[in-house]
Amino acid sequence: MKSRLHDVWAADRGALNGWLSIPSTVTAEITALQDYDSLTLDLQHGLVDYQSALELMQAVTGYGKTVLARVPWNEPGIIMKLLDGGALGIICPMINTAEEAARFVGACQYAPRGYRSSGPTRAGLIYPDYFKNANDTIVTLAMIETVQAVDNLDAILATPNLTGVYVGPGDLAVSMGKPPALDHTDPEMAGVIDGILQKTKAAGLKCGMHCLNPPFMADAVKQGFDFLTLASDVRIFTAAQAAGVAEFRKLGGGDR
Amino acid sequence: MKSRLHDVWAADRGALNGWLSIPSTVTAEITALQDYDSLTLDLQHGLVDYQSALELMQAVTGYGKTVLARVPWNEPGIIMKLLDGGALGIICPMINTAEEAARFVGACQYAPRGYRSSGPTRAGLIYPDYFKNANDTIVTLAMIETVQAVDNLDAILATPNLTGVYVGPGDLAVSMGKPPALDHTDPEMAGVIDGILQKTKAAGLKCGMHCLNPPFMADAVKQGFDFLTLASDVRIFTAAQAAGVAEFRKLGGGDR
Amino acid sequence: MKSRLHDVWAADRGALNGWLSIPSTVTAEITALQDYDSLTLDLQHGLVDYQSALELMQAVTGYGKTVLARVPWNEPGIIMKLLDGGALGIICPMINTAEEAARFVGACQYAPRGYRSSGPTRAGLIYPDYFKNANDTIVTLAMIETVQAVDNLDAILATPNLTGVYVGPGDLAVSMGKPPALDHTDPEMAGVIDGILQKTKAAGLKCGMHCLNPPFMADAVKQGFDFLTLASDVRIFTAAQAAGVAEFRKLGGGDR
Amino acid sequence: MKSRLHDVWAADRGALNGWLSIPSTVTAEITALQDYDSLTLDLQHGLVDYQSALELMQAVTGYGKTVLARVPWNEPGIIMKLLDGGALGIICPMINTAEEAARFVGACQYAPRGYRSSGPTRAGLIYPDYFKNANDTIVTLAMIETVQAVDNLDAILATPNLTGVYVGPGDLAVSMGKPPALDHTDPEMAGVIDGILQKTKAAGLKCGMHCLNPPFMADAVKQGFDFLTLASDVRIFTAAQAAGVAEFRKLGGGDR
Amino acid sequence: MKSRLHDVWAADRGALNGWLSIPSTVTAEITALQDYDSLTLDLQHGLVDYQSALELMQAVTGYGKTVLARVPWNEPGIIMKLLDGGALGIICPMINTAEEAARFVGACQYAPRGYRSSGPTRAGLIYPDYFKNANDTIVTLAMIETVQAVDNLDAILATPNLTGVYVGPGDLAVSMGKPPALDHTDPEMAGVIDGILQKTKAAGLKCGMHCLNPPFMADAVKQGFDFLTLASDVRIFTAAQAAGVAEFRKLGGGDR
Amino acid sequence: MKSRLHDVWAADRGALNGWLSIPSTVTAEITALQDYDSLTLDLQHGLVDYQSALELMQAVTGYGKTVLARVPWNEPGIIMKLLDGGALGIICPMINTAEEAARFVGACQYAPRGYRSSGPTRAGLIYPDYFKNANDTIVTLAMIETVQAVDNLDAILATPNLTGVYVGPGDLAVSMGKPPALDHTDPEMAGVIDGILQKTKAAGLKCGMHCLNPPFMADAVKQGFDFLTLASDVRIFTAAQAAGVAEFRKLGGGDR
Repeated sequence: MKSRLHDVWAADRGALNGWLSIPSTVTAEITALQDYDSLTLDLQHGLVDYQSALELMQAVTGYGKTVLARVPWNEPGIIMKLLDGGALGIICPMINTAEEAARFVGACQYAPRGYRSSGPTRAGLIYPDYFKNANDTIVTLAMIETVQAVDNLDAILATPNLTGVYVGPGDLAVSMGKPPALDHTDPEMAGVIDGILQKTKAAGLKCGMHCLNPPFMADAVKQGFDFLTLASDVRIFTAAQAAGVAEFRKLGGGDR
Repeated sequence: MKSRLHDVWAADRGALNGWLSIPSTVTAEITALQDYDSLTLDLQHGLVDYQSALELMQAVTGYGKTVLARVPWNEPGIIMKLLDGGALGIICPMINTAEEAARFVGACQYAPRGYRSSGPTRAGLIYPDYFKNANDTIVTLAMIETVQAVDNLDAILATPNLTGVYVGPGDLAVSMGKPPALDHTDPEMAGVIDGILQKTKAAGLKCGMHCLNPPFMADAVKQGFDFLTLASDVRIFTAAQAAGVAEFRKLGGGDR
Repeated sequence: MKSRLHDVWAADRGALNGWLSIPSTVTAEITALQDYDSLTLDLQHGLVDYQSALELMQAVTGYGKTVLARVPWNEPGIIMKLLDGGALGIICPMINTAEEAARFVGACQYAPRGYRSSGPTRAGLIYPDYFKNANDTIVTLAMIETVQAVDNLDAILATPNLTGVYVGPGDLAVSMGKPPALDHTDPEMAGVIDGILQKTKAAGLKCGMHCLNPPFMADAVKQGFDFLTLASDVRIFTAAQAAGVAEFRKLGGGDR
Repeated sequence: MKSRLHDVWAADRGALNGWLSIPSTVTAEITALQDYDSLTLDLQHGLVDYQSALELMQAVTGYGKTVLARVPWNEPGIIMKLLDGGALGIICPMINTAEEAARFVGACQYAPRGYRSSGPTRAGLIYPDYFKNANDTIVTLAMIETVQAVDNLDAILATPNLTGVYVGPGDLAVSMGKPPALDHTDPEMAGVIDGILQKTKAAGLKCGMHCLNPPFMADAVKQGFDFLTLASDVRIFTAAQAAGVAEFRKLGGGDR
Repeated sequence: MKSRLHDVWAADRGALNGWLSIPSTVTAEITALQDYDSLTLDLQHGLVDYQSALELMQAVTGYGKTVLARVPWNEPGIIMKLLDGGALGIICPMINTAEEAARFVGACQYAPRGYRSSGPTRAGLIYPDYFKNANDTIVTLAMIETVQAVDNLDAILATPNLTGVYVGPGDLAVSMGKPPALDHTDPEMAGVIDGILQKTKAAGLKCGMHCLNPPFMADAVKQGFDFLTLASDVRIFTAAQAAGVAEFRKLGGGDR
Repeated sequence: MKSRLHDVWAADRGALNGWLSIPSTVTAEITALQDYDSLTLDLQHGLVDYQSALELMQAVTGYGKTVLARVPWNEPGIIMKLLDGGALGIICPMINTAEEAARFVGACQYAPRGYRSSGPTRAGLIYPDYFKNANDTIVTLAMIETVQAVDNLDAILATPNLTGVYVGPGDLAVSMGKPPALDHTDPEMAGVIDGILQKTKAAGLKCGMHCLNPPFMADAVKQGFDFLTLASDVRIFTAAQAAGVAEFRKLGGGDR
C-alpha cells in the first residue's frame, strides 16, 4: 500500500492536495495529471456522491496520487463505502467532541481498534495484503471548524489512531461570527488557527488546512502545516473561465 | 426563437463563443454563467456524445446563450438528433466540397429546402412555433480546414442556406504540412485564413474561427470575423490547474 | 435570491407545487415548463438520489420555479448537500418531536441560528450574495404525518426559523390505523388535518399538503393552505399512459 | 423467440405500439406495465441514444412486449448494435428508394440474406437459438414519409425480407408542402396514405403508422393497418402535466 | 406478491442467493438469467448505491428472482428507499443489540408494527395490493457478525417480525481476532456459527450465511441453513478472468 | 507513447488481448488487473458506446495495457472520437475491399497519410508529443470475416499503413454458410484461416484472431498469430456464474 502522501510525510514535507468537487472523470483525470501529492474527493460540499466518487477514484488510479475522501457527515455507512472503494483516507467534517472523533476513527479501523466492517471490494483488488495493512495506512483527518471543536481540541487530539486534523477556515469563521473566508487575514482567526496547529503538532499529529492560493500555502508549510489544499476544481475552473471572458470583453468585447 | 448570437450578429458585432468538450453538466453550467454569446458542444474532438450533449443543453438552457453543436462527421443522423434536442446550429467538420456542404445544410433544413426529418422533440417544447421558424433560424457553419476546402471555397460559399464558415486552423495547418496550431503566427497560414475571411464576407456569410487567446480574438473581430471561440473547457481547466500547482512548487513545493 | 414561491406567499396566495420522483432531466424539464410555482425533488419516496437530484436541479434552473427537495430522512449530510446544490428549501419527513424539528432546521441554517456547514458550491454560483441571504431565504417544511407529530404540534411549531409544515396524508392515515390515501374524504382525517392547518396558521407559519386532484387543491387554498402538491410525475404519467391504452382497448383494441 | 407482436399479427389483429422517447428506465418501465403489444425505442427524434436504449430494453424485458427500435438513420452500425442488444425489430426512417430499403434490410439479416455481422451479445443471452431464428423473426419496417418514397413504393415493397412499412405522416406532410401533423384530416394526405396501405397489404406486407389518438387508431385498424403507435411518452406526459396545471389555474389558481 | 424465495422456504428448502456488487445492469441481468432463487444487491461493501440499485432492480425484474438489498448501515432513509424501489427484503449489517434489531425491523414495517413511511413508488407499480401485503412479505435479515451480536442473540431473535439472521463470517472472524475468511474451517468459528444456527432455528427463524463455494453451501443447507450466498459477482468475475489468463500464460504465454 | 502491445510485438511474441463488452468501469478495471497485454473495447457487438468507452479507457489507464477499440462500422466519426479519447488502435469490422481498408486506415492517420482530423483532446493529455508520434503508433487492424474479404485479401494487405488483420471466425463461418463458431475445428475453416495467416505474415503484417480458449490460442501463437483474444467479459462472466450455480444444483440444489 504505497502512498505518495505517506512518502511526503515521511520526508517531513508539506503535501499539496487537489480537491475534486466536480462529478466528472475528465476533470478528475486532468487534475490527477498535475503534480499533486494527494487528491480529495469532496462528498460534503462537492457535487459528488458515492457512485461518482467510485468512478473518480478509478479514473485517477493510474497517476500515483494518494486518494482521500471528505464525507458528507460523520456516518459509518458512507465512510466505510469509500474506504472499500479504494480511498486511503477520510476527512470528516464537523468533529466537535472526542466522542465524535472516536466514532469517526472507529469507522475507519478494523477490530479491535474500531468497528469497520470487512469487505474491501475494490480496495482489496488494487492493494496487496489490504486487510493486514489497512489499519496502519488509512489516514483519518478530523475537521476542526467550530469554536466548540477548538475548545475540545485536546480531547479530540487524544483519540487513538487519529492521523491529524484538517482546519476548515470557512466554517470556523462562521462559528466565530465572521463571514466565511479562506486564506484568512483576520488576526483573531490567525490566532485561533495557529493555536490549532501548535497543539496538533505537539500531539505528534498531522495538521492540514483548506486554502486558496499558493503563496499562502507555501507559508503555511513553513509554519508547520502538513497538508494544504489548493482551492477546488470548481473555483479553479470558474476563475479561469471568468478571466478569459473578462479579458476579451475588456479588449473590446466583440466590437469591430 | 430569440437567440443572443443572432442579436450580436444583427448588431454587426463579433460573437464570443465558449467551447464545451467535457461531458459534465457542472463545467457546462459554470461556462454558461460567464458572459459568452454562444456555447458550442463539441461532439467531434470533445469527450461528449449525444446523451451527454442533451444533458449539457438542458443544464445551460437557463442562461440565455445560443447553443450550437459540432458534430463528429457530416452524418445526418447525429445532425438531426442534436437539432431535435435543442441546438440552434451545427458546426460541421471537414467540409471540402460543395456536394458535402449541400448534404450538410440539407440535413439542417426542412423540405423543400432540405431533407431534415420533422420531430423536434425537445426543440418543439422549448421554442414556440418551432417548425415555422426553424429553417430561418438554424445556424449552419461549414468547417474550412483543408487545402481542398480552400480550393473549393467559392463553390462551398454558394451553398443555399449556409450561414457561414468556421476556420479550423489546426487541421488547416496539418493539411498544409505544418504542425497543428491555433492563433497562428505563420504568414502563409495568415494569408490563407485571410483569404477565407475575405471570400466569406464578400459572399455575405459569417466567418468564425477556433482560437485560444483573447488578444488574438479581439484582433480577429476587428479584421471582420464574426464568431470566435475562446479555447475549450479542457484547455482552460488544464492550464489553470497546472498554473496553480507550478506556482506552489516554485514557491518551495512543500519544503519547510 | 429571487424566488417565485416567496413572491406567491408575499401575495398571500396558495402555491402550486410540482413533484419530481423520476430521475430524468427530460421529465423534470417538461414539468418545469408548466405553470407551477415551485418544484420539489423527492429523495424520500421518489426514485431519485443526490446525483440525479443535482442534474434535475440544473435542468429546471432556467424556468423560474423555486426548487425544494424532500430528503429521505432527517439527516444533516443529505440536507446540506441539497442546499449546497441549489435547493432553496427542504421538506423533511417524519418530524414527530420538537427536538427533531430543531435538528432539521438547524441543518438548514448557518450559525448562530444552526449548524449548517458553509460551502455552497453550486448555490454560491447561481445566487448572488448567497451566504448573506441564505438563512432568511431557505424554506424549511416539517412533515406532520403521525399521530405523535399531531400530539407534539405546538412544540414543533415553536421551532425558531421553521417556515411551516407539510401534511403527509398518506402516512398520517396509516398512523391513524387507516389505509394510506390522499385527498382524504374521511371525516376523522379531515378533522385532524384541519386542526394542523388552524394551529399552523395561528402560529404564523405556512401550511402545505400532498394532494392529487386540482379541485381538492383549490378548495384547500381557500381553506388556508399555502402550498399544494399536484400528484407526482410518476402518478401523472402512469395515469395518462393507462388512460390512452384503455381507450384504445375499449374501442376494439386491435380488432378489425 | 416468442413475441407478442408476432402473435397479434398471426391472429390478424392490429398491434398497439408504445413509443419511448425519454431516456429513463422509469418511464419505460411504467409504459411497459400497460397493455401495449410492442414498444419502440426512438433513437431518431427521441432523446435516446444507444447506451440509454440498452438500459431501456433491459428495464422492459420482464413485461412481455416485443421491443423494436427506430434508428437515427439508415446506418448499419447502429442498426446492428440495437439488434445485438435485444431489439426484435427496426424501424428505419426515410427509406425513399429500393436501394435504401435493400441496404436497411440487409443490415438486419445474416448471410446469405444480408450482411448483418454475427455477435448477438445480449440477444443471444435472452433468446434461445438466436442465430437460427433471428432472420425469420426480426421485424423490418421501412418508413414511408416522402413523396419520393411514395413514388418508389412498388420497388420498395419488393425488397426481399422486408416485413412492412411504417407511415410517418408528419414528414410526409412536410414533403407534400404541408405543416407536419399526425392523425391527418386533410383529404389529400388521406388519399396518399390510403394508397400506401392498399399497396402494402396487396404486397402481403404489414402496414404501420405513427398516430396520436385512440379513436383514429381504432379506425385505422379497421381500415387494415397492422401496427399503430399511441403518441409518444413525451407527448403523453406533457399533455397530462399541462392538463392538471390548467385545471388548477382555472379553478382559481392559488387564489384564496 | 409472489416470490420465489418464499416458495423455496415454504417447501423447507435452502435458497441459493446471488450477490450483486457491480453497478452494471449487464452483469446483473446475466446473473438473473442463472438458476438463483434470490438476488441481493450489496449497497454495503458492493460498489453500488441507490441510483444504481434501482437500475439493477429494474434489469432483473423479468427473471423471477426475489430481490433483496443489503444496506450500508442501519439507517431508515436508505432502507425505506430500497423497499419503495421494489426490494422485497433487507439484509442489515452489524446488528449487535435487540435495540438495533428493533430499529431495523421497524424501518421495514408499516404502522402499527413499525415506522416505515408509506410511498411505495415503484413497489406499488409492480406488486398488486402492495400496502396490504407488504408487512407480511418483506424479508428482514439481521447480520450477526460480531461477538457482541452472538452474546445478544437471544434478545435479537426475539424481535417481532424479524425474518431471520444472516451470518457474516468475515466480520465475525475479525471480531474474534482472526483474519476475515468465508467457508470457515476453523473449529472455533464453526462452533460459534453452529450456535447461531441452532438458536435461530429454535426460534423459528430463517438462518442465512455468506459463502463462497457450492460444496460448503450444499453442506450448510443440510445442516439447516435456509439461505446461502454463492460468492459475489466481483469474486466470480475476478477468479474467472484470472484463471483464463493464467492458463494461457502457463501454456507458453505468447511464446512462439 | 510507450505501449505494451508494441513491446510484445517487438519481441516477436504473441499478444494476449482482453475483450471489454460490458459498459462497466468495474469489470473493465478487474480485467485490466490481469496479465493481459492489451484490452479492446468492443463498440460493435459489445454493449458499449462512446461515452461508456471513454470511462472504460480512463478506468484502465493505470494498468499499463495497450487500449484498442473495435468500432461499430467503418465510419470516420466514431473512429476519430475513440483515437482522440486515447485508444491506441482500432479494429474495424467487415473490411471487404481495398477501398474500404484505405478509408479505414485514412481515418486513423493524420495528413499527408490520411484524413484524420487533429484534436486529440484526451490522447494529447496522456501521451507526450502525441501529434508527432500518433501516425507511427496507432494500430489499425482490418477484420477479415467474409468470403469477399478473403478474395480481396492481397489488395487489402497492400493498404499503406495498415498494421494487420483480425480474423473474425464467427462471421467468416456465416459467410461460408456455416453456423458462427470460434476456436474452429472445421477443416475448411482451418484452411481458409491458415491462408489468411500465411498471406498476412508474408506481407509483413500482424495477424490476430478472436478466440475462446487458452489451448487453442497458445497453438495459434505457435502457428504465427500475433494477437489473440480470450473470449469476452460477457462470455467469461456468464460461464463462471453458470458453473457455480450448476455445481450447487448438482450437489443437491437446496435439498436438505
